[in-house]
Amino acid sequence: MSNKIKNDLILRVARGEKTEDVPVWVMRQAGRYLPEYMAMRAKYDFFTLCQTPELAMRITMQPLERFPQLDAAIIFCDILVIPQCMGFDIKMIKGRGPVFSLPLTDIPSLVQEYSGKEKEVISSKLSYVSEAIKLTVQELNGRCPLIGFVGAPWTLAAYMIEGGGSKTYAKAKKLLIQEPTEFNKLMALLTDYCAEFLIAQAAAGASLLQIFDSWGGALSPKIFREKSFPWLKKLIKTVKTALPDIPIVLFVMKAHASMRMVCEESGADVIGIDWSYDLDDITLPQNIAIQGNLDPFVLFASDAEIRLETTEMKRKMEKLGLPWIANLGHGMMPDMNPEKLSIFLTTMKQKNTRA
Amino acid sequence: MSNKIKNDLILRVARGEKTEDVPVWVMRQAGRYLPEYMAMRAKYDFFTLCQTPELAMRITMQPLERFPQLDAAIIFCDILVIPQCMGFDIKMIKGRGPVFSLPLTDIPSLVQEYSGKEKEVISSKLSYVSEAIKLTVQELNGRCPLIGFVGAPWTLAAYMIEGGGSKTYAKAKKLLIQEPTEFNKLMALLTDYCAEFLIAQAAAGASLLQIFDSWGGALSPKIFREKSFPWLKKLIKTVKTALPDIPIVLFVMKAHASMRMVCEESGADVIGIDWSYDLDDITLPQNIAIQGNLDPFVLFASDAEIRLETTEMKRKMEKLGLPWIANLGHGMMPDMNPEKLSIFLTTMKQKNTRA
Repeated sequence: MSNKIKNDLILRVARGEKTEDVPVWVMRQAGRYLPEYMAMRAKYDFFTLCQTPELAMRITMQPLERFPQLDAAIIFCDILVIPQCMGFDIKMIKGRGPVFSLPLTDIPSLVQEYSGKEKEVISSKLSYVSEAIKLTVQELNGRCPLIGFVGAPWTLAAYMIEGGGSKTYAKAKKLLIQEPTEFNKLMALLTDYCAEFLIAQAAAGASLLQIFDSWGGALSPKIFREKSFPWLKKLIKTVKTALPDIPIVLFVMKAHASMRMVCEESGADVIGIDWSYDLDDITLPQNIAIQGNLDPFVLFASDAEIRLETTEMKRKMEKLGLPWIANLGHGMMPDMNPEKLSIFLTTMKQKNTRA
Repeated sequence: MSNKIKNDLILRVARGEKTEDVPVWVMRQAGRYLPEYMAMRAKYDFFTLCQTPELAMRITMQPLERFPQLDAAIIFCDILVIPQCMGFDIKMIKGRGPVFSLPLTDIPSLVQEYSGKEKEVISSKLSYVSEAIKLTVQELNGRCPLIGFVGAPWTLAAYMIEGGGSKTYAKAKKLLIQEPTEFNKLMALLTDYCAEFLIAQAAAGASLLQIFDSWGGALSPKIFREKSFPWLKKLIKTVKTALPDIPIVLFVMKAHASMRMVCEESGADVIGIDWSYDLDDITLPQNIAIQGNLDPFVLFASDAEIRLETTEMKRKMEKLGLPWIANLGHGMMPDMNPEKLSIFLTTMKQKNTRA
């Protein structure tokens, strides 16, 4: 698809090319901080929005209509559509996030029911995502690339076992230690579904894919390395084998002790750097592109401070010397002001703003 | 007091001395994982246990009666007794942790009411902690040192503003950005109270002091450095000026990007290393002692694995070459089995267990 895309800046950076400008997009750029999203949300529940291609397309386009600086769209969806397509009932509860009616307890039955069926399950139950992607690519009309995404197998496993978010993911961490065989089977299953889902999104028109490992940092370095990272590598390798030309971004939150390994061995083209890293004090290999990492909380500060912090980030990123995609170091939050995001985006696209 | 202590191993390590053996204690070694604690908890609520010196002493002694390997006791108390002594009503809710009846909203009034009164407030309202410490020192009868502790100003501020625990501490982080003057006043107030409380605990007989900055890693490196770390340094300096001979342990959870600064500039004698660090891949200055860092979740594994992981930790710590205190990388959890902790402690005290 990429030959039809006029602004392919982000794709060129993701392939490691030097570019004339720094591309920018923002995690959760579509969603609750936008009044135009809340107006739609008032009429439909969250998953209805995801599952209705015309609505998901409209929401995906909302930030692009507001912010001319954006160099990519990201399809409006949720990482939990994978557990959903395996039969889990999930509700979004205000102030609590996703809550499963029944957490995962019987891994063998789940594996027996869904193993080897990723092609048929994804193509039937998640066809709405492909439809939404096709509509959005049409609507974008070559303006910029569309990003597809999945949650990492560990992050999905943790949500499924806990039955929602958690401060410590103690239940999931305990299970992976005490039931390693079952845990591995679950990770294998999720890896197959994640790979198939990414491939389906690319087939529908997504030209960049991101894997969100939001809870990677909840694992000790040893457990991350032994129990989660092999599946991340397998996921990326499977997608790369099927689609060698589609760049992949891997975003692992707060896995500091594993960052070097993630950069060197994951196989991803771009590594997401979250806000907890100090760009002045980070050692990265030279063969990757990176994405990040403005502290989202900076968007609660004054306009002058947003400009200053964004300019500082540009200076530090340029000092690192790697191809980079500007982004926040985590997603937009519901109570953020779109005007503040605009300051970030405008500053990113200004020339000569170096400190 | 330390001249009366027979086993002063942990104090010597904290002062940077080479010792014949590695001292060990465990964060939350007294508490809910012990059936003998739960038997007492069935009769009294959590804060009644803290506030009744005879009961707090008994609970402090429980792990020492069970585990002969322990080289220190830590007074049974809670970091939230500081907000409590400032009039906040806090309840411990099962499965949720501490919940404030009313979170902090009016910082100026709090500062006006409590500023400059730390000596009288701590000595009147927290006299029960000093009493419990005196009773415990008597009961220990020189067996080993007793550790006193406080929460770090930022961690306490975050609990007070949020009104309990949180996944993101968004309210507290937003306030520190949007109301920097008020936030600073709150931090100054808490720093005074924390210093006074540590000094009071040492005066009562605690011979080692630990500061828990459980939420240090929730701040970006820049905000940690500018808005929290100066108060940690002031707290340590104030206590050191009053009590130059009492070693201080500083434990900041998951503040990877700030670890070097914490080691080099905090003024603490010992730096706590949490489970998220890989000891094989950590750079530390040579002028400190460290404490840690077995992943507590290892205690859910088989006995053989606990032995293996503990032996691995010993090997890695010895390779680092710094004086060290063995501990978990975070606290004991309620559903842990005391027998598993015993495996860790026994392995730590065994000779010739190198891999």
